[in-house]
Amino acid sequence: MLAEIITIGDEILIGQIVDTNSAWIGQQMNAIGFKVHQITSVSDNREHILAALKEASCRVQVVLITGGLGPTKDDITKKTICDYFNVGLRFDEQAYKDVAHLFKIRGREVTHINRLQAEVPENCSTLYNKAGTAPGMWFDEGGVVYVSMPGVPHEMKYLMEMEVLPRLKAKFESPFILHKTLLTQGIGESFLSEMIADFEDALPANFKLAYLPAAGSVRLRLTASGNRNEVTETMNRLVAELSVLVSEYLYGFDDDTIEEVAGRLLKAKKLTLGTAESCTGGFLSHLLTRIPGSSEYYMGSTVTYSNESKTALLDVPADLVRKFGAVSEEVVKAMAEGAKLKFNSDCALATSGIAGPGGGTPEKPVGTVWIGISTPAGTWAKKVLLGDNRLITIEVASMTALNMLRKELLEMR
Amino acid sequence: MLAEIITIGDEILIGQIVDTNSAWIGQQMNAIGFKVHQITSVSDNREHILAALKEASCRVQVVLITGGLGPTKDDITKKTICDYFNVGLRFDEQAYKDVAHLFKIRGREVTHINRLQAEVPENCSTLYNKAGTAPGMWFDEGGVVYVSMPGVPHEMKYLMEMEVLPRLKAKFESPFILHKTLLTQGIGESFLSEMIADFEDALPANFKLAYLPAAGSVRLRLTASGNRNEVTETMNRLVAELSVLVSEYLYGFDDDTIEEVAGRLLKAKKLTLGTAESCTGGFLSHLLTRIPGSSEYYMGSTVTYSNESKTALLDVPADLVRKFGAVSEEVVKAMAEGAKLKFNSDCALATSGIAGPGGGTPEKPVGTVWIGISTPAGTWAKKVLLGDNRLITIEVASMTALNMLRKELLEMR
Repeated sequence: MLAEIITIGDEILIGQIVDTNSAWIGQQMNAIGFKVHQITSVSDNREHILAALKEASCRVQVVLITGGLGPTKDDITKKTICDYFNVGLRFDEQAYKDVAHLFKIRGREVTHINRLQAEVPENCSTLYNKAGTAPGMWFDEGGVVYVSMPGVPHEMKYLMEMEVLPRLKAKFESPFILHKTLLTQGIGESFLSEMIADFEDALPANFKLAYLPAAGSVRLRLTASGNRNEVTETMNRLVAELSVLVSEYLYGFDDDTIEEVAGRLLKAKKLTLGTAESCTGGFLSHLLTRIPGSSEYYMGSTVTYSNESKTALLDVPADLVRKFGAVSEEVVKAMAEGAKLKFNSDCALATSGIAGPGGGTPEKPVGTVWIGISTPAGTWAKKVLLGDNRLITIEVASMTALNMLRKELLEMR
Repeated sequence: MLAEIITIGDEILIGQIVDTNSAWIGQQMNAIGFKVHQITSVSDNREHILAALKEASCRVQVVLITGGLGPTKDDITKKTICDYFNVGLRFDEQAYKDVAHLFKIRGREVTHINRLQAEVPENCSTLYNKAGTAPGMWFDEGGVVYVSMPGVPHEMKYLMEMEVLPRLKAKFESPFILHKTLLTQGIGESFLSEMIADFEDALPANFKLAYLPAAGSVRLRLTASGNRNEVTETMNRLVAELSVLVSEYLYGFDDDTIEEVAGRLLKAKKLTLGTAESCTGGFLSHLLTRIPGSSEYYMGSTVTYSNESKTALLDVPADLVRKFGAVSEEVVKAMAEGAKLKFNSDCALATSGIAGPGGGTPEKPVGTVWIGISTPAGTWAKKVLLGDNRLITIEVASMTALNMLRKELLEMR
């Protein structure tokens, strides 16, 4: 079963807003067995909207339309839909009561243009909107369901959850679709694909594998449809197989983040963490602290950009920095041990590298990062080469450090 | 002149990622005089991609395609484009050299499938990609320009900025369009619009004002088209007027960031900065250190999540924390002064607040943040209330701190 999302609004096309509605709708539709076949964003223009509706109706069984239902002149979706179906408007008493109620609790009088919002096309079933002033509309014409909703995210979500998804589930017998995503860190897309080539070739016909790369990680997404029990069983077997194949790099599943996974392990093992950052400049700490409740296991960080501050804040011996340089195994280990002491934590991570664009040498080119880790089991460090994009070096170094911690924690008894 | 964006990838349709590329491309195309007529997201499916290309070529003069250029089997854009134009592939030596170089600086061998990435359709002009392994492709066929780019945002942006936008500007005679953006911090969209209502009403007919809100800032974008000299002259006058009206909140123009503006001021005044973060958790430090060359004026940070670490690392008296609480004027001032001493810097910023979701009280609700500043001129602090979204509180508190520093530096002789 196929659906298409049509988003209406100039603000999307000129890039004034990022369309987050479509991704959310895509997830919801997928979960009830629909495949979103296409997302089409068009301007607030009558002909353009009419053309998009017509084309979509030839491709899919369900057309979900958002946007253009506001009370102002530039919002023309409702009028255009009337033209599309060649129908007039009717006044919907219940929709008007909803609008009047909303104005009352905000202490305001209903204006004329808001009264007009209670008018809906004659052939629609009204989707009452308790979250805003524009009702949604459900049409079932020529074997295609069309739904028109406001573009304001929380109003659209209200209508989808309360009205649209239940109606779609009732109307369509949905096939079963299952997704499972494996999250890897520390290996590129091409190496990963070589590593699992045999697995990929042997996938059942109803299973599909996608590689989704992002800075510092590659997600592997398995998708299947078919009989619920059969698909679920095969998926579990395949996920287990694939997990073994990529175990060295696997840090989690689906919506996990590496900082959450590491955080959960720290919490489970009742261990605390401190960090000492040079080249990552606070980003490692930001990843850890953006998780609510991280103060339970995360003690803090020092960002020591200057050599002097490494000595002043972390007691890294000045001799060590002079002898080996700030970007070295010796110094990053001393930073990790210093952080452990200063924050009185069980574990510590430390980073020191050349994020660039300046500061590289033939021996230590831009992108060279040393990452140190100290746990009750000992202290060690490793070097990674991350290329010449400053921001990516910062992000990948931070994720690499968290993954070192995750692995180390898993190995601890 | 019309353009269409086609984004290819199942991950967009199932909602696994939010398409941020299209909004960015929309902004860039707008700036050089193109109107994005439609954004179409399609799956990694040959027939679907072919249909989308054909339909787009009937609607617009420029088709910008992103996604599906990875080295793995699910990426079929390049092959499909060959079919669309009915051409074969050729091996591009320079593209291969780029790939080999990228692997070399990461200390790895080029794999067979990455070698294949250097193959491009016979009829394309290769857009060399220094930011990744997939080259971009430029086609000029049947009066329509088609551009294929990777979907990874930083690679797409690199190719757009270095290759696509310059080529489009050279090829198409664009009407003169001028944009100027004023960046404000510390005032909401609706207050701003009341403040400048008269200015907005009096704008010449060929000038348009857009409000672009983001976490912690509102951008005001003036856009005009027409005769170059006339538009430029009027724009300069209007920007000067508007700058005076919003001067209290204005921190920069166009692509400035508040951390760059503050950094430039520090450099110009030969002053150094240290920071002490609690609720911002390293994000303030990350903003400062993501600027290349920031080590010239930025000394470092302490992220002190626990009360003990505030004392251990910044010498904040334990009594002070006990008496006033960690989120207080007294403590945040002591943190700023502690950071100044520890980092031996001229200035310091400090943050302490309740980012949430837990930890709020009736007197100090979630979103309460104290920000302290210490300069050669003295130490003071202010309180802001930033609401109940943890990430937004972290971002806005960091920007507010940088804006306090910027204003303070401007007032110093």
